[in-house]
Amino acid sequence: MTTTPFDSTAIRALVFDVFGTVVDWRSSIIREGARLSVAKNLQVEWPAFADAWRAGYQPAMQRARAGEIAWTNLDGLHRTILDGLLPRFGLSGLSEYEREHLNRAWHRLDPWPDSVAGLNRLKSHFVISTLSNGNVALLVNMAKHAGLAWDCVLSAELFQHYKPDPEVYQGAARLLGVKRDEVMMVAAHPSDLVAAQRAGLRTAYVPRPLEWGEGGIVAPVGDAVFDITAADFNALATRLGARA
Amino acid sequence: MTTTPFDSTAIRALVFDVFGTVVDWRSSIIREGARLSVAKNLQVEWPAFADAWRAGYQPAMQRARAGEIAWTNLDGLHRTILDGLLPRFGLSGLSEYEREHLNRAWHRLDPWPDSVAGLNRLKSHFVISTLSNGNVALLVNMAKHAGLAWDCVLSAELFQHYKPDPEVYQGAARLLGVKRDEVMMVAAHPSDLVAAQRAGLRTAYVPRPLEWGEGGIVAPVGDAVFDITAADFNALATRLGARA
Repeated sequence: MTTTPFDSTAIRALVFDVFGTVVDWRSSIIREGARLSVAKNLQVEWPAFADAWRAGYQPAMQRARAGEIAWTNLDGLHRTILDGLLPRFGLSGLSEYEREHLNRAWHRLDPWPDSVAGLNRLKSHFVISTLSNGNVALLVNMAKHAGLAWDCVLSAELFQHYKPDPEVYQGAARLLGVKRDEVMMVAAHPSDLVAAQRAGLRTAYVPRPLEWGEGGIVAPVGDAVFDITAADFNALATRLGARA
Repeated sequence: MTTTPFDSTAIRALVFDVFGTVVDWRSSIIREGARLSVAKNLQVEWPAFADAWRAGYQPAMQRARAGEIAWTNLDGLHRTILDGLLPRFGLSGLSEYEREHLNRAWHRLDPWPDSVAGLNRLKSHFVISTLSNGNVALLVNMAKHAGLAWDCVLSAELFQHYKPDPEVYQGAARLLGVKRDEVMMVAAHPSDLVAAQRAGLRTAYVPRPLEWGEGGIVAPVGDAVFDITAADFNALATRLGARA
Protein backbone atom coordinates (compact mmCIF):
# COMPACT_ATOMS: atom_id res chain seq x y z
CA MET A 1 0.00 0.00 0.00
CA THR A 2 1.18 3.48 -0.85
CA THR A 3 1.61 5.96 1.97
CA THR A 4 2.39 8.95 -0.24
CA PRO A 5 0.52 11.99 1.11
CA PHE A 6 -2.19 12.95 -1.33
CA ASP A 7 -3.42 16.48 -2.00
CA SER A 8 -7.15 16.04 -2.58
CA THR A 9 -7.68 19.74 -3.37
CA ALA A 10 -6.63 19.00 -6.96
CA ILE A 11 -9.48 16.47 -7.36
CA ARG A 12 -12.82 17.66 -8.78
CA ALA A 13 -14.56 14.40 -9.63
CA LEU A 14 -14.45 10.76 -8.54
CA VAL A 15 -15.50 8.14 -11.07
CA PHE A 16 -16.29 4.64 -9.88
CA ASP A 17 -16.04 1.20 -11.29
CA VAL A 18 -19.32 -0.43 -10.24
CA PHE A 19 -19.39 -4.26 -10.52
CA GLY A 20 -17.31 -5.51 -7.61
CA THR A 21 -16.24 -2.04 -6.47
CA VAL A 22 -19.61 -0.53 -5.46
CA VAL A 23 -21.90 -3.55 -5.59
CA ASP A 24 -21.50 -7.20 -4.60
CA TRP A 25 -22.61 -8.72 -7.90
CA ARG A 26 -21.85 -12.32 -6.92
CA SER A 27 -23.97 -12.54 -3.75
CA SER A 28 -26.74 -10.62 -5.48
CA ILE A 29 -26.89 -12.97 -8.48
CA ILE A 30 -26.80 -16.00 -6.16
CA ARG A 31 -29.66 -14.50 -4.13
CA GLU A 32 -31.77 -13.84 -7.24
CA GLY A 33 -31.07 -17.40 -8.38
CA ALA A 34 -32.09 -18.83 -5.03
CA ARG A 35 -35.43 -17.00 -5.33
CA LEU A 36 -35.93 -18.51 -8.76
CA SER A 37 -35.11 -21.96 -7.35
CA VAL A 38 -37.83 -21.57 -4.72
CA ALA A 39 -40.38 -20.20 -7.20
CA LYS A 40 -39.76 -22.89 -9.80
CA ASN A 41 -38.61 -25.76 -7.54
CA LEU A 42 -35.23 -25.98 -9.29
CA GLN A 43 -31.89 -27.33 -8.08
CA VAL A 44 -29.12 -25.12 -9.42
CA GLU A 45 -25.53 -24.49 -8.31
CA TRP A 46 -26.05 -20.72 -8.20
CA PRO A 47 -22.50 -19.80 -7.07
CA ALA A 48 -21.07 -21.69 -10.05
CA PHE A 49 -23.75 -20.13 -12.26
CA ALA A 50 -22.87 -16.60 -11.09
CA ASP A 51 -19.16 -17.24 -11.67
CA ALA A 52 -19.80 -18.68 -15.14
CA TRP A 53 -22.00 -15.73 -16.10
CA ARG A 54 -19.36 -13.24 -15.00
CA ALA A 55 -16.60 -15.28 -16.65
CA GLY A 56 -18.34 -14.80 -20.00
CA TYR A 57 -18.08 -11.01 -19.66
CA GLN A 58 -14.44 -10.37 -20.66
CA PRO A 59 -14.57 -12.55 -23.81
CA ALA A 60 -17.90 -10.99 -24.83
CA MET A 61 -16.50 -7.45 -24.47
CA GLN A 62 -13.43 -8.53 -26.38
CA ARG A 63 -15.61 -9.63 -29.30
CA ALA A 64 -17.35 -6.23 -29.25
CA ARG A 65 -13.99 -4.45 -28.96
CA ALA A 66 -12.43 -6.43 -31.81
CA GLY A 67 -15.39 -5.62 -34.05
CA GLU A 68 -16.38 -9.32 -34.35
CA ILE A 69 -19.88 -8.26 -33.30
CA ALA A 70 -21.54 -4.85 -33.70
CA TRP A 71 -21.51 -2.61 -30.61
CA THR A 72 -23.74 -4.26 -28.03
CA ASN A 73 -24.47 -2.84 -24.61
CA LEU A 74 -23.91 -4.88 -21.47
CA ASP A 75 -27.56 -5.95 -21.15
CA GLY A 76 -27.18 -7.44 -24.62
CA LEU A 77 -23.87 -9.16 -23.82
CA HIS A 78 -25.26 -10.50 -20.52
CA ARG A 79 -28.25 -11.94 -22.35
CA THR A 80 -26.12 -13.72 -24.96
CA ILE A 81 -23.94 -15.23 -22.23
CA LEU A 82 -27.03 -16.20 -20.22
CA ASP A 83 -28.67 -17.96 -23.15
CA GLY A 84 -25.47 -19.96 -23.62
CA LEU A 85 -25.37 -20.98 -19.94
CA LEU A 86 -28.97 -22.04 -19.37
CA PRO A 87 -28.71 -25.61 -20.81
CA ARG A 88 -25.55 -26.32 -18.78
CA PHE A 89 -27.38 -25.44 -15.54
CA GLY A 90 -30.64 -27.23 -16.33
CA LEU A 91 -32.49 -23.96 -16.96
CA SER A 92 -33.57 -24.45 -20.58
CA GLY A 93 -37.19 -24.45 -19.47
CA LEU A 94 -37.21 -20.76 -18.49
CA SER A 95 -39.69 -18.65 -20.44
CA GLU A 96 -38.65 -15.53 -22.34
CA TYR A 97 -40.10 -13.42 -19.53
CA GLU A 98 -38.13 -15.37 -16.91
CA ARG A 99 -34.91 -15.11 -18.93
CA GLU A 100 -35.33 -11.37 -19.34
CA HIS A 101 -36.15 -10.95 -15.65
CA LEU A 102 -33.05 -12.98 -14.70
CA ASN A 103 -30.92 -10.96 -17.12
CA ARG A 104 -32.04 -7.81 -15.38
CA ALA A 105 -30.80 -9.17 -12.04
CA TRP A 106 -27.73 -7.05 -12.93
CA HIS A 107 -29.98 -3.98 -12.52
CA ARG A 108 -30.79 -5.07 -8.96
CA LEU A 109 -27.38 -5.67 -7.42
CA ASP A 110 -26.84 -4.80 -3.76
CA PRO A 111 -24.11 -2.45 -2.54
CA TRP A 112 -21.23 -3.39 -0.24
CA PRO A 113 -22.06 -2.38 3.36
CA ASP A 114 -19.96 0.82 3.22
CA SER A 115 -20.93 1.95 -0.31
CA VAL A 116 -23.98 4.14 0.33
CA ALA A 117 -22.59 5.95 3.37
CA GLY A 118 -19.16 6.42 1.80
CA LEU A 119 -20.61 7.77 -1.46
CA ASN A 120 -22.83 10.21 0.44
CA ARG A 121 -19.79 11.57 2.28
CA LEU A 122 -17.81 11.89 -0.95
CA LYS A 123 -20.75 13.52 -2.77
CA SER A 124 -20.63 16.51 -0.42
CA HIS A 125 -17.08 17.29 -1.57
CA PHE A 126 -16.77 16.00 -5.12
CA VAL A 127 -18.77 15.20 -8.21
CA ILE A 128 -19.32 11.43 -7.99
CA SER A 129 -20.12 9.43 -11.11
CA THR A 130 -20.19 5.87 -12.30
CA LEU A 131 -17.62 4.92 -14.94
CA SER A 132 -18.75 1.40 -15.68
CA ASN A 133 -19.05 -1.04 -18.52
CA GLY A 134 -22.70 -1.40 -17.46
CA ASN A 135 -25.13 0.37 -19.76
CA VAL A 136 -26.90 3.56 -18.69
CA ALA A 137 -30.30 1.95 -17.96
CA LEU A 138 -28.65 -0.78 -15.88
CA LEU A 139 -26.72 1.79 -13.82
CA VAL A 140 -29.74 4.08 -13.37
CA ASN A 141 -31.99 1.23 -12.23
CA MET A 142 -29.28 -0.12 -9.94
CA ALA A 143 -28.79 3.30 -8.35
CA LYS A 144 -32.51 3.52 -7.52
CA HIS A 145 -32.49 -0.06 -6.18
CA ALA A 146 -29.36 0.36 -4.09
CA GLY A 147 -29.66 4.03 -3.05
CA LEU A 148 -26.53 5.24 -4.83
CA ALA A 149 -26.76 9.03 -5.10
CA TRP A 150 -24.65 9.55 -8.24
CA ASP A 151 -24.27 13.07 -9.58
CA CYS A 152 -23.87 11.60 -13.05
CA VAL A 153 -24.15 8.21 -14.73
CA LEU A 154 -21.28 7.66 -17.15
CA SER A 155 -21.03 4.39 -19.03
CA ALA A 156 -18.97 2.66 -21.69
CA GLU A 157 -22.20 2.83 -23.70
CA LEU A 158 -21.78 6.59 -24.14
CA PHE A 159 -18.38 6.12 -25.77
CA GLN A 160 -19.10 2.82 -27.54
CA HIS A 161 -15.88 1.56 -26.02
CA TYR A 162 -15.47 -0.79 -23.09
CA LYS A 163 -12.93 -0.25 -20.32
CA PRO A 164 -9.96 -0.56 -20.31
CA ASP A 165 -10.02 1.29 -23.67
CA PRO A 166 -8.59 4.79 -23.08
CA GLU A 167 -11.59 6.45 -24.78
CA VAL A 168 -13.72 5.67 -21.71
CA TYR A 169 -11.44 7.41 -19.18
CA GLN A 170 -10.67 10.34 -21.48
CA GLY A 171 -14.36 10.70 -22.34
CA ALA A 172 -15.33 10.89 -18.67
CA ALA A 173 -13.01 13.85 -18.05
CA ARG A 174 -14.26 15.57 -21.22
CA LEU A 175 -17.96 15.19 -20.33
CA LEU A 176 -17.36 16.28 -16.74
CA GLY A 177 -15.56 19.36 -18.05
CA VAL A 178 -12.42 18.84 -15.98
CA LYS A 179 -8.77 18.02 -16.66
CA ARG A 180 -7.89 14.36 -16.63
CA ASP A 181 -5.69 14.73 -13.56
CA GLU A 182 -8.65 16.33 -11.73
CA VAL A 183 -10.54 13.02 -12.03
CA MET A 184 -9.85 10.09 -9.72
CA MET A 185 -10.83 6.59 -10.80
CA VAL A 186 -11.94 4.39 -7.88
CA ALA A 187 -11.84 0.64 -8.49
CA ALA A 188 -11.28 -2.74 -6.88
CA HIS A 189 -9.40 -3.96 -9.96
CA PRO A 190 -5.78 -2.98 -10.60
CA SER A 191 -6.16 -3.45 -14.37
CA ASP A 192 -8.89 -0.78 -14.49
CA LEU A 193 -6.77 1.61 -12.44
CA VAL A 194 -3.63 1.05 -14.50
CA ALA A 195 -5.61 1.90 -17.66
CA ALA A 196 -7.07 5.00 -15.99
CA GLN A 197 -3.57 6.05 -14.92
CA ARG A 198 -2.26 5.65 -18.48
CA ALA A 199 -5.14 7.88 -19.65
CA GLY A 200 -3.98 10.58 -17.20
CA LEU A 201 -6.45 10.07 -14.31
CA ARG A 202 -5.66 9.84 -10.62
CA THR A 203 -6.36 6.48 -8.97
CA ALA A 204 -7.79 5.06 -5.75
CA TYR A 205 -7.58 1.34 -5.12
CA VAL A 206 -10.28 -0.13 -2.88
CA PRO A 207 -9.73 -3.90 -2.70
CA ARG A 208 -12.88 -5.99 -2.34
CA PRO A 209 -11.49 -9.35 -1.18
CA LEU A 210 -14.96 -10.93 -1.04
CA GLU A 211 -15.87 -10.09 -4.66
CA TRP A 212 -15.46 -13.72 -5.74
CA GLY A 213 -16.71 -15.10 -2.40
CA GLU A 214 -14.87 -16.46 0.62
CA GLY A 215 -11.41 -17.64 -0.46
CA GLY A 216 -11.91 -16.16 -3.91
CA ILE A 217 -9.13 -14.80 -6.09
CA VAL A 218 -7.96 -11.21 -5.64
CA ALA A 219 -6.16 -9.80 -8.69
CA PRO A 220 -2.53 -8.93 -7.82
CA VAL A 221 -1.45 -5.30 -7.77
CA GLY A 222 2.01 -6.24 -9.06
CA ASP A 223 4.28 -3.21 -9.29
CA ALA A 224 1.45 -0.74 -9.95
CA VAL A 225 1.41 2.30 -7.63
CA PHE A 226 -1.88 4.12 -7.03
CA ASP A 227 -2.44 7.56 -5.50
CA ILE A 228 -4.55 6.15 -2.68
CA THR A 229 -5.28 2.70 -1.31
CA ALA A 230 -8.24 2.51 1.06
CA ALA A 231 -9.97 -0.41 2.79
CA ASP A 232 -13.47 0.81 1.90
CA PHE A 233 -15.40 3.93 0.80
CA ASN A 234 -15.52 5.39 4.31
CA ALA A 235 -11.74 5.12 4.57
CA LEU A 236 -11.50 6.67 1.09
CA ALA A 237 -13.73 9.57 2.19
CA THR A 238 -11.53 10.15 5.23
CA ARG A 239 -8.35 10.08 3.11
CA LEU A 240 -9.92 12.67 0.79
CA GLY A 241 -10.94 14.95 3.65
CA ALA A 242 -14.72 14.34 3.50
CA ARG A 243 -16.55 14.72 6.77
CA ALA A 244 -17.93 11.61 8.51
CA MET B 1 -55.58 22.99 -20.97
CA THR B 2 -56.27 19.33 -21.63
CA THR B 3 -58.47 17.48 -19.18
CA THR B 4 -58.00 14.03 -20.72
CA PRO B 5 -57.51 11.49 -17.92
CA PHE B 6 -53.95 10.22 -18.03
CA ASP B 7 -52.85 6.71 -17.06
CA SER B 8 -49.47 7.28 -15.44
CA THR B 9 -48.82 3.55 -14.94
CA ALA B 10 -47.51 3.39 -18.52
CA ILE B 11 -44.80 5.98 -17.73
CA ARG B 12 -41.37 4.76 -16.61
CA ALA B 13 -39.23 7.86 -16.97
CA LEU B 14 -39.68 11.62 -16.98
CA VAL B 15 -37.16 13.70 -18.91
CA PHE B 16 -36.96 17.43 -18.29
CA ASP B 17 -36.09 20.44 -20.28
CA VAL B 18 -33.95 22.49 -17.89
CA PHE B 19 -33.46 26.16 -18.90
CA GLY B 20 -36.75 27.87 -18.14
CA THR B 21 -38.53 24.66 -17.11
CA VAL B 22 -36.51 23.66 -14.01
CA VAL B 23 -34.37 26.74 -13.43
CA ASP B 24 -35.02 30.47 -13.69
CA TRP B 25 -32.07 31.31 -15.96
CA ARG B 26 -32.99 34.99 -16.42
CA SER B 27 -33.12 36.03 -12.75
CA SER B 28 -30.01 33.97 -12.06
CA ILE B 29 -27.96 35.62 -14.82
CA ILE B 30 -29.16 39.07 -13.72
CA ARG B 31 -28.17 38.27 -10.13
CA GLU B 32 -24.69 37.09 -11.18
CA GLY B 33 -24.34 40.26 -13.26
CA ALA B 34 -25.36 42.44 -10.34
CA ARG B 35 -22.63 40.84 -8.24
CA LEU B 36 -20.10 41.59 -10.94
CA SER B 37 -21.34 45.21 -11.06
CA VAL B 38 -20.71 45.58 -7.35
CA ALA B 39 -17.31 43.89 -7.47
CA LYS B 40 -16.08 45.91 -10.47
CA ASN B 41 -18.12 49.10 -10.01
CA LEU B 42 -19.81 48.71 -13.41
CA GLN B 43 -23.13 50.05 -14.71
CA VAL B 44 -24.73 47.39 -16.91
CA GLU B 45 -28.33 46.77 -18.01
CA TRP B 46 -28.25 43.16 -16.80
CA PRO B 47 -31.84 42.26 -17.79
CA ALA B 48 -31.10 43.35 -21.38
CA PHE B 49 -27.76 41.54 -21.18
CA ALA B 50 -29.42 38.29 -20.00
CA ASP B 51 -32.02 38.51 -22.78
CA ALA B 52 -29.38 39.20 -25.43
CA TRP B 53 -27.23 36.29 -24.24
CA ARG B 54 -30.19 33.92 -24.38
CA ALA B 55 -31.29 35.34 -27.74
CA GLY B 56 -27.96 34.25 -29.22
CA TYR B 57 -28.64 30.64 -28.29
CA GLN B 58 -31.04 29.53 -31.06
CA PRO B 59 -28.94 30.97 -33.91
CA ALA B 60 -25.76 29.47 -32.40
CA MET B 61 -27.37 26.01 -32.19
CA GLN B 62 -28.63 26.42 -35.71
CA ARG B 63 -25.07 27.02 -36.92
CA ALA B 64 -23.96 23.84 -35.14
CA ARG B 65 -26.98 21.93 -36.50
CA ALA B 66 -26.40 23.12 -40.06
CA GLY B 67 -22.77 22.05 -39.89
CA GLU B 68 -21.53 25.65 -40.34
CA ILE B 69 -19.41 25.11 -37.24
CA ALA B 70 -18.08 21.84 -35.84
CA TRP B 71 -20.08 20.31 -32.99
CA THR B 72 -19.68 22.64 -30.00
CA ASN B 73 -21.20 22.05 -26.60
CA LEU B 74 -23.34 24.69 -24.93
CA ASP B 75 -20.50 26.05 -22.77
CA GLY B 76 -18.68 26.72 -26.03
CA LEU B 77 -21.69 28.34 -27.71
CA HIS B 78 -22.40 30.45 -24.62
CA ARG B 79 -18.81 31.67 -24.60
CA THR B 80 -18.86 32.67 -28.28
CA ILE B 81 -22.11 34.59 -27.76
CA LEU B 82 -20.73 36.21 -24.59
CA ASP B 83 -17.55 37.38 -26.30
CA GLY B 84 -19.71 38.99 -28.98
CA LEU B 85 -21.87 40.80 -26.39
CA LEU B 86 -19.21 42.20 -24.08
CA PRO B 87 -18.32 45.34 -26.12
CA ARG B 88 -22.00 46.25 -26.53
CA PHE B 89 -22.50 46.24 -22.76
CA GLY B 90 -19.28 48.03 -21.84
CA LEU B 91 -17.66 44.85 -20.55
CA SER B 92 -14.63 44.60 -22.84
CA GLY B 93 -12.38 45.11 -19.84
CA LEU B 94 -13.20 41.75 -18.26
CA SER B 95 -10.20 39.44 -17.86
CA GLU B 96 -10.15 35.91 -19.27
CA TYR B 97 -10.80 34.58 -15.76
CA GLU B 98 -13.79 36.91 -15.31
CA ARG B 99 -15.22 35.99 -18.72
CA GLU B 100 -14.90 32.29 -17.98
CA HIS B 101 -16.46 32.74 -14.53
CA LEU B 102 -19.36 34.70 -16.05
CA ASN B 103 -19.80 32.07 -18.76
CA ARG B 104 -20.16 29.45 -16.05
CA ALA B 105 -23.01 31.42 -14.47
CA TRP B 106 -25.12 28.95 -16.50
CA HIS B 107 -23.76 26.20 -14.19
CA ARG B 108 -25.12 28.10 -11.18
CA LEU B 109 -28.73 28.80 -12.11
CA ASP B 110 -31.38 28.71 -9.38
CA PRO B 111 -34.46 26.49 -9.51
CA TRP B 112 -38.06 27.72 -9.62
CA PRO B 113 -39.58 27.57 -6.09
CA ASP B 114 -41.42 24.27 -6.75
CA SER B 115 -38.66 22.48 -8.68
CA VAL B 116 -36.73 20.71 -5.92
CA ALA B 117 -39.76 19.51 -3.96
CA GLY B 118 -41.63 18.45 -7.10
CA LEU B 119 -38.66 16.53 -8.49
CA ASN B 120 -38.15 14.73 -5.18
CA ARG B 121 -41.78 13.58 -5.23
CA LEU B 122 -41.52 12.44 -8.84
CA LYS B 123 -38.21 10.66 -8.17
CA SER B 124 -39.89 8.26 -5.76
CA HIS B 125 -42.15 7.00 -8.57
CA PHE B 126 -40.21 7.46 -11.81
CA VAL B 127 -36.73 7.69 -13.21
CA ILE B 128 -36.12 11.44 -13.55
CA SER B 129 -33.52 12.76 -15.94
CA THR B 130 -32.49 15.96 -17.60
CA LEU B 131 -32.93 16.14 -21.38
CA SER B 132 -31.35 19.47 -22.07
CA ASN B 133 -29.27 21.25 -24.64
CA GLY B 134 -26.94 22.09 -21.74
CA ASN B 135 -23.75 20.04 -21.71
CA VAL B 136 -23.17 17.31 -19.14
CA ALA B 137 -20.76 19.28 -16.95
CA LEU B 138 -23.11 22.28 -16.89
CA LEU B 139 -26.05 20.09 -15.85
CA VAL B 140 -24.05 18.16 -13.23
CA ASN B 141 -22.70 21.35 -11.66
CA MET B 142 -26.14 22.98 -11.75
CA ALA B 143 -27.70 19.96 -10.04
CA LYS B 144 -25.20 20.20 -7.18
CA HIS B 145 -25.73 23.97 -6.92
CA ALA B 146 -29.53 23.79 -7.02
CA GLY B 147 -30.14 20.46 -5.22
CA LEU B 148 -31.73 18.69 -8.21
CA ALA B 149 -31.66 14.94 -7.44
CA TRP B 150 -31.55 13.60 -11.02
CA ASP B 151 -31.33 9.85 -11.52
CA CYS B 152 -29.52 10.49 -14.78
CA VAL B 153 -28.05 13.44 -16.66
CA LEU B 154 -28.90 13.24 -20.36
CA SER B 155 -27.77 15.99 -22.68
CA ALA B 156 -27.75 16.95 -26.34
CA GLU B 157 -23.98 16.58 -25.97
CA LEU B 158 -24.32 12.79 -25.74
CA PHE B 159 -26.07 12.66 -29.11
CA GLN B 160 -24.22 15.53 -30.80
CA HIS B 161 -27.62 16.86 -31.77
CA TYR B 162 -29.49 19.76 -30.24
CA LYS B 163 -33.20 19.67 -29.45
CA PRO B 164 -35.57 19.74 -31.25
CA ASP B 165 -33.69 17.23 -33.45
CA PRO B 166 -35.44 13.83 -33.04
CA GLU B 167 -32.15 12.06 -32.25
CA VAL B 168 -32.19 13.65 -28.78
CA TYR B 169 -35.63 12.35 -27.76
CA GLN B 170 -35.10 8.94 -29.36
CA GLY B 171 -31.65 8.67 -27.79
CA ALA B 172 -33.05 9.35 -24.32
CA ALA B 173 -35.49 6.42 -24.56
CA ARG B 174 -32.75 4.15 -25.91
CA LEU B 175 -30.26 5.00 -23.14
CA LEU B 176 -32.93 4.67 -20.43
CA GLY B 177 -33.84 1.25 -21.85
CA VAL B 178 -37.55 1.97 -22.21
CA LYS B 179 -40.00 2.37 -25.05
CA ARG B 180 -40.50 5.90 -26.37
CA ASP B 181 -44.09 6.02 -25.15
CA GLU B 182 -42.89 5.09 -21.65
CA VAL B 183 -40.96 8.38 -21.51
CA MET B 184 -42.66 11.68 -20.75
CA MET B 185 -40.98 14.94 -21.77
CA VAL B 186 -41.62 17.79 -19.33
CA ALA B 187 -41.09 21.29 -20.68
CA ALA B 188 -42.24 24.90 -20.50
CA HIS B 189 -41.86 25.29 -24.27
CA PRO B 190 -44.48 23.94 -26.69
CA SER B 191 -41.91 23.59 -29.51
CA ASP B 192 -39.84 21.17 -27.40
CA LEU B 193 -42.94 19.13 -26.53
CA VAL B 194 -44.20 19.00 -30.10
CA ALA B 195 -40.82 17.63 -31.21
CA ALA B 196 -40.85 15.08 -28.38
CA GLN B 197 -44.35 14.04 -29.36
CA ARG B 198 -43.31 13.57 -32.99
CA ALA B 199 -40.49 11.34 -31.75
CA GLY B 200 -43.04 9.17 -29.91
CA LEU B 201 -42.70 10.46 -26.35
CA ARG B 202 -45.49 11.45 -23.96
CA THR B 203 -45.64 15.12 -23.01
CA ALA B 204 -46.29 17.30 -19.97
CA TYR B 205 -46.54 21.05 -20.41
CA VAL B 206 -45.58 23.17 -17.40
CA PRO B 207 -45.86 26.83 -18.41
CA ARG B 208 -43.38 29.18 -16.73
CA PRO B 209 -44.93 32.61 -17.39
CA LEU B 210 -42.09 34.42 -15.58
CA GLU B 211 -39.31 32.87 -17.68
CA TRP B 212 -38.75 36.15 -19.56
CA GLY B 213 -39.59 38.29 -16.53
CA GLU B 214 -42.74 40.14 -15.55
CA GLY B 215 -44.80 40.81 -18.65
CA GLY B 216 -42.48 38.67 -20.76
CA ILE B 217 -43.54 36.66 -23.79
CA VAL B 218 -45.02 33.18 -23.34
CA ALA B 219 -44.79 31.03 -26.46
CA PRO B 220 -48.27 30.11 -27.72
CA VAL B 221 -49.44 26.50 -27.52
CA GLY B 222 -51.40 26.87 -30.78
CA ASP B 223 -53.32 23.72 -31.61
CA ALA B 224 -50.84 21.37 -29.93
CA VAL B 225 -52.38 18.93 -27.42
CA PHE B 226 -50.24 17.53 -24.65
CA ASP B 227 -50.92 14.56 -22.36
CA ILE B 228 -50.78 16.70 -19.23
CA THR B 229 -50.74 20.40 -18.50
CA ALA B 230 -49.74 21.33 -14.95
CA ALA B 231 -49.12 24.64 -13.23
CA ASP B 232 -45.87 23.52 -11.59
CA PHE B 233 -43.91 20.40 -10.62
CA ASN B 234 -45.99 19.77 -7.50
CA ALA B 235 -49.16 19.80 -9.58
CA LEU B 236 -47.45 17.51 -12.09
CA ALA B 237 -46.49 15.08 -9.29
CA THR B 238 -50.07 15.03 -8.08
CA ARG B 239 -51.40 14.42 -11.62
CA LEU B 240 -48.95 11.51 -11.94
CA GLY B 241 -49.96 9.97 -8.61
CA ALA B 242 -46.79 10.81 -6.67
CA ARG B 243 -47.29 11.29 -2.92
CA ALA B 244 -46.93 14.79 -1.45
